[in-house]
Amino acid sequence: MSRFSFRTDFSRTPNPLAEALARHRGLPPLDLTVSNPTRVGLPAPDAGLLHPPGALDYAPEALGLPSAREAVAAHLSSRGPVISPGHLVLSASTSESYSWLFKLLCEPGDDVLVPAPCYPLFEHLARLEGVGTRPYRLPLAHGFGLDAGAVEAALGPRTRAVLVVNPGNPTGHFLHEGELAALADVCARHGLALLCDEVFSDYGWGVEPHRVASVAGRELPMLTFSLSGLSKVCGLPGLKLGWTHVGGPPAARDEALARLEWVADTYLSVGTPVQLALPALLAHAPVFQEALLERVRGHRRRLVAARPPGAPWDVVPAHGGWSAVVRIPREPGDEATCLALLDAGVLAQPGYFYDFDSGAFLVLSLLPPPEVFSAALGPLTRVLGAAE
Amino acid sequence: MSRFSFRTDFSRTPNPLAEALARHRGLPPLDLTVSNPTRVGLPAPDAGLLHPPGALDYAPEALGLPSAREAVAAHLSSRGPVISPGHLVLSASTSESYSWLFKLLCEPGDDVLVPAPCYPLFEHLARLEGVGTRPYRLPLAHGFGLDAGAVEAALGPRTRAVLVVNPGNPTGHFLHEGELAALADVCARHGLALLCDEVFSDYGWGVEPHRVASVAGRELPMLTFSLSGLSKVCGLPGLKLGWTHVGGPPAARDEALARLEWVADTYLSVGTPVQLALPALLAHAPVFQEALLERVRGHRRRLVAARPPGAPWDVVPAHGGWSAVVRIPREPGDEATCLALLDAGVLAQPGYFYDFDSGAFLVLSLLPPPEVFSAALGPLTRVLGAAE
Ligand SMILES: Cc1ncc(COP(=O)(O)O)c(C=O)c1O
Ligand SMILES: Cc1ncc(COP(=O)(O)O)c(C=O)c1O
Repeated sequence: MSRFSFRTDFSRTPNPLAEALARHRGLPPLDLTVSNPTRVGLPAPDAGLLHPPGALDYAPEALGLPSAREAVAAHLSSRGPVISPGHLVLSASTSESYSWLFKLLCEPGDDVLVPAPCYPLFEHLARLEGVGTRPYRLPLAHGFGLDAGAVEAALGPRTRAVLVVNPGNPTGHFLHEGELAALADVCARHGLALLCDEVFSDYGWGVEPHRVASVAGRELPMLTFSLSGLSKVCGLPGLKLGWTHVGGPPAARDEALARLEWVADTYLSVGTPVQLALPALLAHAPVFQEALLERVRGHRRRLVAARPPGAPWDVVPAHGGWSAVVRIPREPGDEATCLALLDAGVLAQPGYFYDFDSGAFLVLSLLPPPEVFSAALGPLTRVLGAAE
Repeated sequence: MSRFSFRTDFSRTPNPLAEALARHRGLPPLDLTVSNPTRVGLPAPDAGLLHPPGALDYAPEALGLPSAREAVAAHLSSRGPVISPGHLVLSASTSESYSWLFKLLCEPGDDVLVPAPCYPLFEHLARLEGVGTRPYRLPLAHGFGLDAGAVEAALGPRTRAVLVVNPGNPTGHFLHEGELAALADVCARHGLALLCDEVFSDYGWGVEPHRVASVAGRELPMLTFSLSGLSKVCGLPGLKLGWTHVGGPPAARDEALARLEWVADTYLSVGTPVQLALPALLAHAPVFQEALLERVRGHRRRLVAARPPGAPWDVVPAHGGWSAVVRIPREPGDEATCLALLDAGVLAQPGYFYDFDSGAFLVLSLLPPPEVFSAALGPLTRVLGAAE
């Protein structure tokens, strides 16, 4: 009989919430799990941008068309240090960028450190490359910020890189200068590369001292890879374009770029039309981002305001991103609370999807249209409970 | 210092021909190596197809949008047995399909059998997945057709699949019924999957008895994966869409599809606009294919006619594809002949790029615009020589 690989041997058992949702009768619930930015009534660019002149002319360029890389460099340079287009690698998505970086840095059997709690993205991406993941904890006491000691404690003999999500998804904590300095020290001492996921870095809700919005273009002692893309920066996941900035000591950086060029050349995975449209798409980013930030800030303010004084739940402090984390009592816990919310007509995510461990949590999307979010606040506060 | 993986440790030394080309002065040579179908004056579809309604709306569907899979199924069904959209997996390219199939079938350290001579595509794709390649020879005596005995002889203890390119690139031999039956027997006895690359299968130059244009939709005892995509079917490599048909014993086929769905879901790599445009793009395929076939047949006829009787070179018989293989004397051999051709103003590929072994060969693209191909015939026949 046919044998399939261990690396594709994923569990396909549906979780209890998905099963409850499949059984759910009546109106579709008020959905506080939406993550698709194209379906919540935010401003989209003109679709005519999708057929720029020359869109059917194919120019295979492994790292991406020079005009597209220049547009990304200009976008990043407008937010921090000057970025050279020569240090950028385009891909079809951040997910693909990860797969290339795992191939670059890891032999099968090596591993990488991943944050917990975090959006569950890395385990499958790594496993498909024959690479393991080792979690390092983001301490709740530190607002789910980075603890370089926890990173170092999680190291194994074959660890090759540390993944940081900045700001964390769904935890919304930005890397701070002090955290980065401590992390750089750990990386330098153990020969680790830093993979910094900056897909949400344009979505800080306010100003914060010592925030590190990006590691791109900084002088650091280790190889750094800053990842982002159109999915979140422009809210256009269907167009399939991501980028990676490569930084660090020049010799290692240039060798990494040369190898990534070969990897990219093997797949040539970025479409021509979206590369040609990129300057115009990035020019639209501020319109989308401002509308999204206004919505997210407003929803969060309303959520915090809806909490009765002394209630047994709380909104965890955060500084950016598209989600809110709500701490709830350990009893009945996250799954039972999500099922009770579903009965009350609200769909929310339990913390265990994200590997929270220090208590019970819910994750709420801050993207829903205002009428959906507002309508959900009543049932949400009713189920979560008032002061005893 | 930084360590990079063995799997990205490709040789980056330029070959002598590339170096000669870089040194080449004067007019750019008459290029008989072109493979980019968008740059040879063949008919292109209307670029307005690239922004179909809904192009910016994102509907994550791991295996591909139902409408796009139905369009591929209809396209394949018009050429052979009826194909179910449920047995199709979309990807961004055939290259990506290969990477998913290697992940599905192979653990790191396993290997796959690849044809030789062949377009050099598989070694890097496999290596990046931690997978090895073992060549099996296509015998010249058999017109570079498949020899199931050579396949069986090439097997190793960890071989998981056989790759067949149908018709071969650049050798232009289609799989025949007898070859497929013998191959199916080898696959069934050794538990091997068949990966059948059918990107050129629409490009048969004439009718041939017993030709197998596709393994999709046939009753075969082993898992089969038929690969193709827009790159060659519509001559649109920049739009990034490929497909894989999964066939074979139903239980194994369904498990393969379920696992591929998870793999595809990890990357979600196919753009929305091209999926929505797919029915219209495939409707344009016949226009492109007929124009291409007319050109390719004409160039080949002119090449054969240009050979003086008794000349020391010959055009190897073939039945389809975009190339011609020319057998030349072993002395001075393929590389020296290509350098002499370059001096005479013609760029051609030496056989060693494709791992020919039984003699010396040149590979000529049959895609160039007529004026380029015709102008090249004079210097070509002069350098290759007349009868002694
Ligand atoms: C932190 C983070 N990184 C990356 C991604 C994936 O992005 P892409 O669509 O570019 O693969 C996500 C998706 O939600 C994410 O949350
Ligand atoms: C036989 C064969 N298969 C696959 C490919 C790659 O196709 P794609 O552009 O879909 O990755 C090529 C490219 O020339 C090829 O010759």
